[in-house]
Amino acid sequence: MQTDSYIIQVNGNGVVPTVRDVCIKGTSFPKEKMKVRKARWSVRPSDISKKTFNPIRAIVDSMNVEPNPNKPMIALSIGDPTVFGNLPTDDQVIQAMKGALDSGKYNGYAPSIGYQSSRAVIAKYYSCPESPLEAKDVILTSGCSQAIELALGVLANPGQNILIPRPGFSLYKTLAVSMGLEVKLYNLRPEKSWEIDLKHLESLIDDKTACIVVNNPSNPCGSVFSKNHLQKILAVASRQCVPILADEIYGDMVFGDRKFQALAPLSTTVPILSCGGLAKRWLVPGWRMGWILIHDRKDIFGNEIRDGLIRLSQRILGPCTIVQGALEHIIHGTPPDFYHNTISFIKANADLCYSALSVVPGLTPIRPAGAMYLMVGIAMEYFPEFENDIEFTERLISEQSVFCLPATCFEYPNYFRVVLTVPEEMMLEACNRIRVFCQQHYLGSEGAQEMECDK
Amino acid sequence: MQTDSYIIQVNGNGVVPTVRDVCIKGTSFPKEKMKVRKARWSVRPSDISKKTFNPIRAIVDSMNVEPNPNKPMIALSIGDPTVFGNLPTDDQVIQAMKGALDSGKYNGYAPSIGYQSSRAVIAKYYSCPESPLEAKDVILTSGCSQAIELALGVLANPGQNILIPRPGFSLYKTLAVSMGLEVKLYNLRPEKSWEIDLKHLESLIDDKTACIVVNNPSNPCGSVFSKNHLQKILAVASRQCVPILADEIYGDMVFGDRKFQALAPLSTTVPILSCGGLAKRWLVPGWRMGWILIHDRKDIFGNEIRDGLIRLSQRILGPCTIVQGALEHIIHGTPPDFYHNTISFIKANADLCYSALSVVPGLTPIRPAGAMYLMVGIAMEYFPEFENDIEFTERLISEQSVFCLPATCFEYPNYFRVVLTVPEEMMLEACNRIRVFCQQHYLGSEGAQEMECDK
Repeated sequence: MQTDSYIIQVNGNGVVPTVRDVCIKGTSFPKEKMKVRKARWSVRPSDISKKTFNPIRAIVDSMNVEPNPNKPMIALSIGDPTVFGNLPTDDQVIQAMKGALDSGKYNGYAPSIGYQSSRAVIAKYYSCPESPLEAKDVILTSGCSQAIELALGVLANPGQNILIPRPGFSLYKTLAVSMGLEVKLYNLRPEKSWEIDLKHLESLIDDKTACIVVNNPSNPCGSVFSKNHLQKILAVASRQCVPILADEIYGDMVFGDRKFQALAPLSTTVPILSCGGLAKRWLVPGWRMGWILIHDRKDIFGNEIRDGLIRLSQRILGPCTIVQGALEHIIHGTPPDFYHNTISFIKANADLCYSALSVVPGLTPIRPAGAMYLMVGIAMEYFPEFENDIEFTERLISEQSVFCLPATCFEYPNYFRVVLTVPEEMMLEACNRIRVFCQQHYLGSEGAQEMECDK
Repeated sequence: MQTDSYIIQVNGNGVVPTVRDVCIKGTSFPKEKMKVRKARWSVRPSDISKKTFNPIRAIVDSMNVEPNPNKPMIALSIGDPTVFGNLPTDDQVIQAMKGALDSGKYNGYAPSIGYQSSRAVIAKYYSCPESPLEAKDVILTSGCSQAIELALGVLANPGQNILIPRPGFSLYKTLAVSMGLEVKLYNLRPEKSWEIDLKHLESLIDDKTACIVVNNPSNPCGSVFSKNHLQKILAVASRQCVPILADEIYGDMVFGDRKFQALAPLSTTVPILSCGGLAKRWLVPGWRMGWILIHDRKDIFGNEIRDGLIRLSQRILGPCTIVQGALEHIIHGTPPDFYHNTISFIKANADLCYSALSVVPGLTPIRPAGAMYLMVGIAMEYFPEFENDIEFTERLISEQSVFCLPATCFEYPNYFRVVLTVPEEMMLEACNRIRVFCQQHYLGSEGAQEMECDK
């Protein structure tokens, strides 16, 4: 604050003061020194607004195909469990919001990182003996998207790079590129249930690597890493001294008897920012309630990273206070059956979809273990009519009115992603139509062999 | 999407595909080419997180004084009308939220710029014949703070400058500096009810000026510009071809018979991004519902600025959907009396505070015409014990337990800001304590004359 450069002389007798002798550093009153502005209108969008680029939007918008007018559209494309109305949130979640409204306590500004009490609720819920959390370790954000934005924003400078999974959720790249970061894509191995190719991951790390993004359970893969695999990921991070941004928004959304293993409890050294939120598990993605859990047992982030997160949060001042006020009852009042029923439903659809598509020639579904997605490989050589997964999915819309996202959206061509939260009868019908579509366009093994000979 | 640089060979017989021959542009598998990373931990916060700096926080945190233990604290410092519980929002606003919750329609993702229907509600509400608005002209944001962030973000590139008022709301500078923008402060004239020094404003414009920020009604001044003055501001913008970011979050919060005049209807040429929200008028700042109204009658922003705003909004995906769903009923269902009562209350406090402080020697309150603040000039030469407004307000806390923000927080030393939304008896008591404080520290006119001689 350069208060000395600005002098106000005040008349002390109750007369309105006048501003005189204003002398502003770096500002030149004399007009001859001014760069004269050309007086014509030319307002262009900023570079950052041009660099902020969502590949899903770009690809989907360019597809622009009409569904078959004789078949009702089935959209298996949107990662929003609420669109079909078959997966409402729990009534306790609604009651929690009403309670927060009625209390009248949650209308004003909260601290930009959230109410202390709400942060304490999240800290307690996710705390465990191996990685204890207190309110000070929690930053509440406007959805998990902002959690990821703040986490990347505090860890990386322009010119640095971050490592993100391929296939992977497109927001990582969208945010990173807009921040002037380089993204390096590490491979997941579909034949190993989408485990990380650890050698590849480690080979990408250099002295400009700011963090590794680990998404578990995964969008778009629906994969869930084992404890053993997570330990190996941590070993790489520890050996190379790279912090981890763990996107665990699908945490606890794991099928059957398997248990979700969070990353942080497995390491005593690697500093981890774990991002999560209400969106998926509580089925309210529109409410924009996310959080960052700061795991830093060796004090490697230290106060500086915490303070940086707090400063960044002051730009837009945190998530809606009503949802913050409702958090305690949402977290403690939601009956266990609610979570169980959601997961059972998604698992049933996963089994149904996997079984139905496994027998379709030319398709290779990868069985998911959690989240709400299933990836399907397309043996493109058996579908010579189509150049790639985008054309394949375009024609699937125009002929069968089934919309799946081409996995080029996730930097992974020749696959498509199926969203598993649709009503069961839609899932069945969609799989049926996909089967018919593939049968109509599949080039039998003979034809495929001919093609091989052409090479 | 460089799909050509990534080849997956898929076994077409239903076997899980394997990833082979992976060839990634810009990534060097051979280890000898890698920049070797030093294997030690060093995680530093990013430059942008260090540059994101809220001067209010910095100043207030550094004040760190204890209130007088014998007097209960009265905080006239926080620009949040809800803190004292005397200004609840209207019951219709609460009912609107409950209706949105019960409908079950607003739990999923909205478009990142908001539901079309909610944007239409805001468009219709703020549309007028001189500056018509449609849904496409409205971007819903996570509070007015994000509205300002997106507006600055789309209009300005690093190295450009923006013009902001002095005194002015600190967020403009916080955001601008973090974006690498230069801020130039144009003077407001307290003796002219805080009108803009238009010559000074125009003298600051150069070929790197991206926009002029106009805040009306003003925080911290409580000033309301006349139609005539607004026209003169527009004339500068029009002559110099500079777009305007109008922060109108206190729009319609104007005392007495005066009417709030929005900026956009007064110009047919100047492109304007008007930022507003529910926070102040509906007394729910924590809910984080803001908006940008795009006024662009001469198509100077064009589609590019609109598209830029949409792209930027995709980073964190908009405000809470429940509040979006409630907007229609909030806007149309809130009884006129609610607005009227709020404004009457604030005006009564303004009158009370102005009258009480006008007769205090050494203080010069400036009568506000709207918003919820009042600025008070301090004739520092009559308070030689105190170096500046920060020391003055510090001692006011430690002696009288009254906390006013030193206007150095707003780049305007030797003033302090009073928040007018506190209960009337608190306002009275605070003014009384301020009077006692000033009387105790005021150096009579003789002493002041001696000081003048010392110069």
